[in-house]
Amino acid sequence: MAAMRILLDAQGGDHAPVEPVRAAAEISRTTEIDIVLVGEPDVIAAQLAQVPHEAARIEVLPAQGTIGMDEKPREAIERKPDASLCVAMRALRDGHADALVSAGSTGALVLAAAQWVPRIPGIERSALAAVYPTPQRGKNRDRFALMLDVGATVHCRPKDLLFFAYMGHAYASRISKVERPSIGLLNMGSEPTKGGETLVEAHRLLQGEAQLNFTGNIEGNDIPAGKVDVIVCEGLLGNVTLKMAEGTGELFRNLGRWAFKQSLLWKLGLLLLASGLRRLKQLTDYSEYGGAPLLGFTRPILKAHGRSSARALGNAIKVAAKAARDGVCDEIARAVADFEARQGQDVAAAGGG
Amino acid sequence: MAAMRILLDAQGGDHAPVEPVRAAAEISRTTEIDIVLVGEPDVIAAQLAQVPHEAARIEVLPAQGTIGMDEKPREAIERKPDASLCVAMRALRDGHADALVSAGSTGALVLAAAQWVPRIPGIERSALAAVYPTPQRGKNRDRFALMLDVGATVHCRPKDLLFFAYMGHAYASRISKVERPSIGLLNMGSEPTKGGETLVEAHRLLQGEAQLNFTGNIEGNDIPAGKVDVIVCEGLLGNVTLKMAEGTGELFRNLGRWAFKQSLLWKLGLLLLASGLRRLKQLTDYSEYGGAPLLGFTRPILKAHGRSSARALGNAIKVAAKAARDGVCDEIARAVADFEARQGQDVAAAGGG
Repeated sequence: MAAMRILLDAQGGDHAPVEPVRAAAEISRTTEIDIVLVGEPDVIAAQLAQVPHEAARIEVLPAQGTIGMDEKPREAIERKPDASLCVAMRALRDGHADALVSAGSTGALVLAAAQWVPRIPGIERSALAAVYPTPQRGKNRDRFALMLDVGATVHCRPKDLLFFAYMGHAYASRISKVERPSIGLLNMGSEPTKGGETLVEAHRLLQGEAQLNFTGNIEGNDIPAGKVDVIVCEGLLGNVTLKMAEGTGELFRNLGRWAFKQSLLWKLGLLLLASGLRRLKQLTDYSEYGGAPLLGFTRPILKAHGRSSARALGNAIKVAAKAARDGVCDEIARAVADFEARQGQDVAAAGGG
Repeated sequence: MAAMRILLDAQGGDHAPVEPVRAAAEISRTTEIDIVLVGEPDVIAAQLAQVPHEAARIEVLPAQGTIGMDEKPREAIERKPDASLCVAMRALRDGHADALVSAGSTGALVLAAAQWVPRIPGIERSALAAVYPTPQRGKNRDRFALMLDVGATVHCRPKDLLFFAYMGHAYASRISKVERPSIGLLNMGSEPTKGGETLVEAHRLLQGEAQLNFTGNIEGNDIPAGKVDVIVCEGLLGNVTLKMAEGTGELFRNLGRWAFKQSLLWKLGLLLLASGLRRLKQLTDYSEYGGAPLLGFTRPILKAHGRSSARALGNAIKVAAKAARDGVCDEIARAVADFEARQGQDVAAAGGG
């Protein structure tokens, strides 16, 4: 099989270009993946010179400037069409590589993808999926669950939520290797009649899909409990919930630091617990885990956390390569086409009967 | 000033009737509040006989049966119009008391209130407000913040969200004694243009109210950080977010129990940290704090947690009495009437100009 080729935004993220270039160097030496580093050639060359790498596996695609985390995404993309993220998206559109990874601004990533990369036919809304760790559950030894959408959309039609379920199904089964991943619809009650028109209709649509292991509505407390492998929700709901979880983790860490200073006994206790607390941190800091896939496009796009180290970026690159190689986007496309075809038949049957 | 008179659902909650009756007995001996215990007279009498109480301050209002936590609220209310909650709501409507407290089913409480208690003129949607603890913030030494709605509605009109802000403002300033409580609109971004039509319009309305200390949109991570005193949101969003927080607290406690069994070092560490962990539990278990007010009605209604002890119920009774005495509902009514009058003037001015 041909080597996978991944576009990496060399200017995106808090530690760019150092960590992206390091990630590219490490990947070039330890895997069969080819990297296209997108950014300012001089800067990239200077950084590459400092780390051992396999030059034949790294291509540099020139770009000018970057889109900052604090810039308004829409304006920034218009003003800087040659920024690394924009150049990378157009290269992905043109088939220059199999997938894309960026640790830059999430808003800009979502908008740039919408502007340049074709969506899968039938899909009108893309979804950003957060991968988060959960307690081990049942037969599934992978402790990761997927929530989508967490911010690419605001509100959705019922059909969009169904397609999110197919995206989650494809990603969880191919990347996390979960057989028949369980899927829950995030709602304010477990009964199918809860949550207003859109969620009631989405529940009905999901129940009608034999290929999906839809287990019904789930509630907020089911998320940290890890009740299902894939959580489907509108972007507004998913974004607020995810950021709430981040904030809670942050609060616990602050309390830990505060407790450390309070008493000698607590200090001693915390030291004894250090390895346990580290494990706990891993369980609550979703940013430790590779990237968040932006799904609904014809090629895999991975958003790595802004704080990403070379190691985290390396993980995201491997995941992106795996998603491309295993045909995650093709599987989503097939499921959507199949649904639309069945809908068409229903309409035809209704018309003929 | 006349003694406040509070209806207490003697059959509601996990520990009914024992804890409600105990709470009534304790309140009758230690405060100036009169209690109306609503439930089966024989059962209440048998329980009351076992605890010291001030008989003159306790009235028993007969009711038959209760609505279980696992019953479908709508059907249960129809089938059992003489259940303690239903009798209590009708007594509140009839002016038999100043406020109502129940630890029973939340869904049934919201529906029974809607069925029997008049709403404040102009208000179409009531709101259930969760009181939750936060890190100490600024001048505000009260560590409690308020989020509403957390489940009485699904979706709202912009105007409903504005009225939620007035409800939160009245409750936080009169009960929590926060001067000019800061108010945030829960959203997926801080910009006023975020979150779709309803939230954009709600943001605009809120910004126009000089009486409110509206600070703009807040995001999910701002909730545990305690950025504002009052968080305004639709019920679907508030419910999922609140239950997520509950679930996260539960996860931490489970991890603590698990860690305790893992190694002698961790066990020792946890023992040394015990008092710190208790404090942490208090900070994450919002159920420790009195009740959740159901706002928008002409009289205060408090939902105490299902697990409430006599002490927690006692706190809820005191809060309900305070809300009644301090005219929380009247203040909300004045704010709504004032807004509607200004709207009317705008319309008249537009028509005349």
